Amino acid sequence: MSKATSHAAEGQGCAPIAFLPPRPDVLARRDEIVAALAGLVSPGGVVRAPLALKPFETDAFVAYRQPPLAVVLPQTTAEVSAVLAYCHGAGVPVVARGAGTSLSGGAIPQADAVVLGLSRMNRILEIDLENRTARVEAGVTNLSISERVAAQGFFYAPDPSSQLACTIGGNIAMNSGGAHCLKYGVTTNNLLGVTLVLIDGTVVTLGGKHLDAGGYDLLGLVCGAEGQLGVVTEAVVRLIARPEGARPVLFGFDSSEEAGACVADIIAAGIIPVAIEFMDRPAIAICEAFAKAGYPLDVAALLIVEVEGAEAEMAAMLAEIVTIARRHGVRTVRESQSATEAALIWKGRKSAFGATGRIADYICMDGTVPLSQLPYVLKRTAEICAGFGLEVANVFHAGDGNMHPLILFNANDPVEAAKAEAAGNEILKLCVEAGGCLTGEHGVGLEKRDLMRFQYSEAELAQQMAVRAAFDPRWLLNPSKVFPLEGRPA
Amino acid sequence: MSKATSHAAEGQGCAPIAFLPPRPDVLARRDEIVAALAGLVSPGGVVRAPLALKPFETDAFVAYRQPPLAVVLPQTTAEVSAVLAYCHGAGVPVVARGAGTSLSGGAIPQADAVVLGLSRMNRILEIDLENRTARVEAGVTNLSISERVAAQGFFYAPDPSSQLACTIGGNIAMNSGGAHCLKYGVTTNNLLGVTLVLIDGTVVTLGGKHLDAGGYDLLGLVCGAEGQLGVVTEAVVRLIARPEGARPVLFGFDSSEEAGACVADIIAAGIIPVAIEFMDRPAIAICEAFAKAGYPLDVAALLIVEVEGAEAEMAAMLAEIVTIARRHGVRTVRESQSATEAALIWKGRKSAFGATGRIADYICMDGTVPLSQLPYVLKRTAEICAGFGLEVANVFHAGDGNMHPLILFNANDPVEAAKAEAAGNEILKLCVEAGGCLTGEHGVGLEKRDLMRFQYSEAELAQQMAVRAAFDPRWLLNPSKVFPLEGRPA
Repeated sequence: MSKATSHAAEGQGCAPIAFLPPRPDVLARRDEIVAALAGLVSPGGVVRAPLALKPFETDAFVAYRQPPLAVVLPQTTAEVSAVLAYCHGAGVPVVARGAGTSLSGGAIPQADAVVLGLSRMNRILEIDLENRTARVEAGVTNLSISERVAAQGFFYAPDPSSQLACTIGGNIAMNSGGAHCLKYGVTTNNLLGVTLVLIDGTVVTLGGKHLDAGGYDLLGLVCGAEGQLGVVTEAVVRLIARPEGARPVLFGFDSSEEAGACVADIIAAGIIPVAIEFMDRPAIAICEAFAKAGYPLDVAALLIVEVEGAEAEMAAMLAEIVTIARRHGVRTVRESQSATEAALIWKGRKSAFGATGRIADYICMDGTVPLSQLPYVLKRTAEICAGFGLEVANVFHAGDGNMHPLILFNANDPVEAAKAEAAGNEILKLCVEAGGCLTGEHGVGLEKRDLMRFQYSEAELAQQMAVRAAFDPRWLLNPSKVFPLEGRPA
Repeated sequence: MSKATSHAAEGQGCAPIAFLPPRPDVLARRDEIVAALAGLVSPGGVVRAPLALKPFETDAFVAYRQPPLAVVLPQTTAEVSAVLAYCHGAGVPVVARGAGTSLSGGAIPQADAVVLGLSRMNRILEIDLENRTARVEAGVTNLSISERVAAQGFFYAPDPSSQLACTIGGNIAMNSGGAHCLKYGVTTNNLLGVTLVLIDGTVVTLGGKHLDAGGYDLLGLVCGAEGQLGVVTEAVVRLIARPEGARPVLFGFDSSEEAGACVADIIAAGIIPVAIEFMDRPAIAICEAFAKAGYPLDVAALLIVEVEGAEAEMAAMLAEIVTIARRHGVRTVRESQSATEAALIWKGRKSAFGATGRIADYICMDGTVPLSQLPYVLKRTAEICAGFGLEVANVFHAGDGNMHPLILFNANDPVEAAKAEAAGNEILKLCVEAGGCLTGEHGVGLEKRDLMRFQYSEAELAQQMAVRAAFDPRWLLNPSKVFPLEGRPA
């Protein structure tokens, strides 16, 4: 549950998330550790002053703040290797950090950890249009890759709402998605290779510019492992040719259930638009008030369906979609008439979280369900929130079944905050029971760590932790995240 | 290197591939082991008579034969669990087997191993068109899934040439590809979930009908792990809507280099046809003689480019491709004029290995290279084979950069056979040096096990083996495969 805090004192109202207890020996050696790190990176590469540590205390899951032991900002893979080798030898936990936009607390430090910030490793190393690949350092922002190749007609597909700020390294850690992943896949489907530094400082290369590879798919394993198997310093990503045209179309419905059923039918028919985004009435109102995107305000649910390709292709696909939408009693169908209008439509959608934060505190869920379950899960989500007396706004990647109910509450009211958290847990249980899972694109982080048992058996968690230990036997990498604190191996 | 043996006594001429020495204690306990297994599965589920073991001695990498200790044929996940738990406790190696169509020896047993055959687990458990998924047992053949949903307009995309016989379990073990994977991806891109039995008998579920999942991507890790991390008993796979139309088009060129450069340019332009297959002159002659597919015989290289979609879409994409082909001096462009002609074109391509086996012995490589390297690698492949005085036929998935040079030789001539093997090794080294890798879709198996050091550093292999040990600490699952025998952990 991502937690916005525009209205509330930070962290109030929610039950505190436990961290592993800090290692006293590490805290006691702080001066020694900072001095050692300073010898391993370029000048100015270690941060320890309390004020300078402030920006590293939390991430976009802002409810929890914790200053780290220190921050180290290496500039090369060799420096990352030296830092990890040192921390491994000295038994110091390490939390890697990109831009700190994690919605699940993936980059929140702990008191005895060194934050390894990749922000200085922000170079685009190679654009290889012949092979449709870009090789970039981990600190490069998501959007800057697309910007670099836009003139040549290419782009990098996964597009998290935070794409202006978030880094490829963070995207890899969380296997990030975005509105356009319905057609193009999430990060793991667009990642061809990485340079990975293991906890002992060993540098390995996984994948490359080619399809597949012999042996196990460690590349896929590292993608989404939330910085626990090593630190990615470079990535080779796929570039995609921008289609001839793209057009978002708005479909308004009288109920969320009908809109959800329409999405399921579009996908069941085998049609894959580039995006199908869903907004219910509260979400429409919130986004429209902020972005003036031209969304219809007289409907209960809105789908933004984007089609792309040549004019004839778009027209043919749209015709099919409209036919299906009519079966579900679509009330309004409105095609964007200009590039400006199209951009506004997307601006409205992408600002949903920020716009919601202007009017209330919220927690944002990230459960994913099989598409046929969308209408049922939407209905039950509404019932669950109503049962707690809470409002909910739904704005999400419907084509992927990746739901983002935003549960609105007042964080200054501890009772209401507790209700919001309880409702959130109910909704995630609902997603799992409906054949889905806890997270689609935000990762587990701190946020859903203690809910992992909803989804996995003890044996399944044990196997994941055994894999983790095969990379990081001392559990030094981002140790407070992903796995429930209880039941870990000794 | 897959080795056809139509003309030769099996196994002659090639250096023997070493297995791990059989465990004497296991060999000595054969009667006891067979009796125990018989108590764990349904009647008739254990095979031990020498003649009955014959079909299990090898796979499509037929150069090597080795009868196993016994074969066990469970009918349920519970039976698989019981068998693995027993073998784990008794220290008996296990080699899982689908249809035995592996081209890299992935299913070849060893003397002290129980072959766990999945052929009795061949039910399609659920077709869920609403969610575009099929849930099947591991022994279901690849093609039967597509056949089951054909009437509803859907199919399962990965299409190995062996799709009539090969099983989904085997496809998952090898992360199999096929001609149409350029657009739709290989097995890992079409696999949503598995039921996996771990070596100690624990049953875990990875993935499901939903996008992504919390925690590590063990599903992706298991796909392509060649049966070493557990035994898959069920899978949930994605179904795809069959496009309105599909049309293979033949493009003939005066040189392999020009054809290769044309492929690279098509992909660099961002065009993704559903398939781009490549055949050089020897391959064209061999396939045409067998399949009478109507391939032009006056060209040095042929591309089969398949486009799909509505008529207008196909025409637009084809026009772009023809423009690029003309830049590379294309000599003939021929669209298939009927469904029969289209089927014949594919029949010719898919029978390439069998047709080659009619005229010579061959070893088939599976290296994959970045597309921009195709012309260079084709030229060097020809030079390497000429240097050894050997003929080579190239027939492969060009759009994926997944090369299949077939090195022709006489397996009754030990000198020539040794040359063929040496040439094959040179070609795989070339692929790695060109930024590619050892295998695109056939897996490592026995065949490329000892070449893994061409591609991976010691640290990289050690990390893969550590992951393996996190699933199977005693190395009981398919132990002679994937990793060089020397340098394994104690």
